[in-house]
Amino acid sequence: MALFALAAPFAHAQATGDLGLVVERASGSLLVVDQSDRARIGRIEGLGDLSHASLVYSPDERFAYVFGRDGGLTKVDIIAQSIVGRVMQAGNSIGGAISDDGEYVAVSNYEPGGVRIFDSETLEMVADIPSGGKTIGLVDVPGTRFVFSLWDKGETWIADMSGGEAEVTRIEGIGSNPYDALVTGDGRTYIAGLFGEDHLTALDLWQDSPAPRQILPGYAEGREGLPVYKMPHLEGWALAGQDFVLPAMGQHEVLWVDARSLKETGRTATYGQPVFAMARPDGRHVWVNFAHPRNDTIQVIDSVTKQVIHQFSPGPGVLHMEFTPRGHEVWLSVRDAGKVMVYDTQTFEKLREIEAESPSGIFFTARAHRTGL
Amino acid sequence: MALFALAAPFAHAQATGDLGLVVERASGSLLVVDQSDRARIGRIEGLGDLSHASLVYSPDERFAYVFGRDGGLTKVDIIAQSIVGRVMQAGNSIGGAISDDGEYVAVSNYEPGGVRIFDSETLEMVADIPSGGKTIGLVDVPGTRFVFSLWDKGETWIADMSGGEAEVTRIEGIGSNPYDALVTGDGRTYIAGLFGEDHLTALDLWQDSPAPRQILPGYAEGREGLPVYKMPHLEGWALAGQDFVLPAMGQHEVLWVDARSLKETGRTATYGQPVFAMARPDGRHVWVNFAHPRNDTIQVIDSVTKQVIHQFSPGPGVLHMEFTPRGHEVWLSVRDAGKVMVYDTQTFEKLREIEAESPSGIFFTARAHRTGL
Repeated sequence: MALFALAAPFAHAQATGDLGLVVERASGSLLVVDQSDRARIGRIEGLGDLSHASLVYSPDERFAYVFGRDGGLTKVDIIAQSIVGRVMQAGNSIGGAISDDGEYVAVSNYEPGGVRIFDSETLEMVADIPSGGKTIGLVDVPGTRFVFSLWDKGETWIADMSGGEAEVTRIEGIGSNPYDALVTGDGRTYIAGLFGEDHLTALDLWQDSPAPRQILPGYAEGREGLPVYKMPHLEGWALAGQDFVLPAMGQHEVLWVDARSLKETGRTATYGQPVFAMARPDGRHVWVNFAHPRNDTIQVIDSVTKQVIHQFSPGPGVLHMEFTPRGHEVWLSVRDAGKVMVYDTQTFEKLREIEAESPSGIFFTARAHRTGL
Repeated sequence: MALFALAAPFAHAQATGDLGLVVERASGSLLVVDQSDRARIGRIEGLGDLSHASLVYSPDERFAYVFGRDGGLTKVDIIAQSIVGRVMQAGNSIGGAISDDGEYVAVSNYEPGGVRIFDSETLEMVADIPSGGKTIGLVDVPGTRFVFSLWDKGETWIADMSGGEAEVTRIEGIGSNPYDALVTGDGRTYIAGLFGEDHLTALDLWQDSPAPRQILPGYAEGREGLPVYKMPHLEGWALAGQDFVLPAMGQHEVLWVDARSLKETGRTATYGQPVFAMARPDGRHVWVNFAHPRNDTIQVIDSVTKQVIHQFSPGPGVLHMEFTPRGHEVWLSVRDAGKVMVYDTQTFEKLREIEAESPSGIFFTARAHRTGL
């Protein structure tokens, strides 16, 4: 036993910087993956309805908080590969965020409408912010604050948790039916997409009283809209060089928007209706996937020339992409092939296929260190 | 023993996302710290001469590669809190970098002058790039490449390791005596400070053949230079809002430079000669420390108004600052007080003091996920 006793303490020592979780929506499970080994290393089961599920990580990259569509908030331990806590906190929820200090986890709910905030350690509710309707676009920003928008009221609310209780600031006049929103990587600019308007609305959160500002007015003007098979994800907005890249709603194209002026700087025609337009972390390339029925294909666009430089078909149902933190590889969920595929982002060579049950979202632990996810 | 056997596998499970190492230069040791607990959790000894030491992390945030001034390259395991490998790879070295895929560790040497590249797993040398003189400003960029500059020749070299061997591209005409350099966070713009010129030189690494471009010409023109007590660190350049912030050499001020045009946009007078001007991760504030004899003080500058908004004196010998990845706290090395101090970046309240032996550089594991450090 002496040898065992010596070996045991570090036998399961597990660094967490290169781990990740893949949502297996059909089976309500999470695949635990290791980026460096390009391998699955375990599975966590019993998470309920994981359609449209997303998750965030604790600052130590050990715990994930999983937001299920069914209102379940589940805390999992990526080292032990087990569930450590689970609460049914609402009837229908749509994503969440974790505060900059890691103390609070906030969940955005449709039913009952509002945001609920939980102690990240115990999952006890510490704040309940009813909004009288659906909430969307919940993000964390510096100062232990959360920002979110109200579908019915066209408002954006800021909940400041720095005092331990939610102090809420309401901003009116965002526009009709915000359906999704994002914040830039520095936590400064919050941008809401609007279902009921032909523009988007931006807020400068560095202002003492942020005032709504219309951007990209009339961006689909004069053109017949295509059916919106899938609402584009604004989290897919990404800084590529000096522009943001935006999947255009109802069009076969991505828009380029100057990151400073928020004015349009160009459009690139694409193979289908873009779902995610994600910049490689260095911003040089943008990877785009598409809505059904063209969701078997990926296009890669050069952010300097704004031209498509590569196109390939990984397989049926490419739902999500996640880059390694410094961008040398990318992982793709190919749902209907039952596989996660790993590609080299410089050579576009396929490096590995990993079996998974109807994989959707892929989330690497490096997200723990980023604002606004 | 049954209980022990059950408990043991996870007894020392250690997530690594919120750990860090503090260089204790006088004793040749590293303090292992935990950001979330604001605590020291161990010490690693036997690292030799750690004056001007720096380090980088493996992608899994488990291993650190420590670059000692004496030419020692030491690999430490932050979970086991022990040295796992050490080579004396040169007589006098000045920092290093790790490739985007985590496969290669490069070290910049004065004696013999050049860069040596090592297998990150075994520390075996895989490439030797003699340069005939001192090398400085070594950084990693995407594509498994390293960039560095030559003090004597005024050149910048790019070593591409993507094929497993060093393929070197030489760029002439950088200017006289580059003494330090940095790359922007996206790995695109490499900027060299020049001891023998009154300007800096920038390279756009996205160009097929990057051409040197002079920036900030004559930035100290017409003013009497103050003694340069300490060469300012260009790694201190940081993106604050839409500007970079630069500690001016030989002056009591920081310069603001437009991140896009690289033209000067303003200057802020400071309490002393700045050593590091570091932006909080969200870019809203810049924290500045100073050269001897004014190295007991910190000033905080607002990046919108470019005004000093806070000044305080943590203690004698404030050598380094490191922000938590999302910027809610900052750790300061106060060498002559024998302490690391932790501050809240919103309230400026001191949260903790941690005993340390002559602390200098502080390095959190989140650096593993960033380019160009």
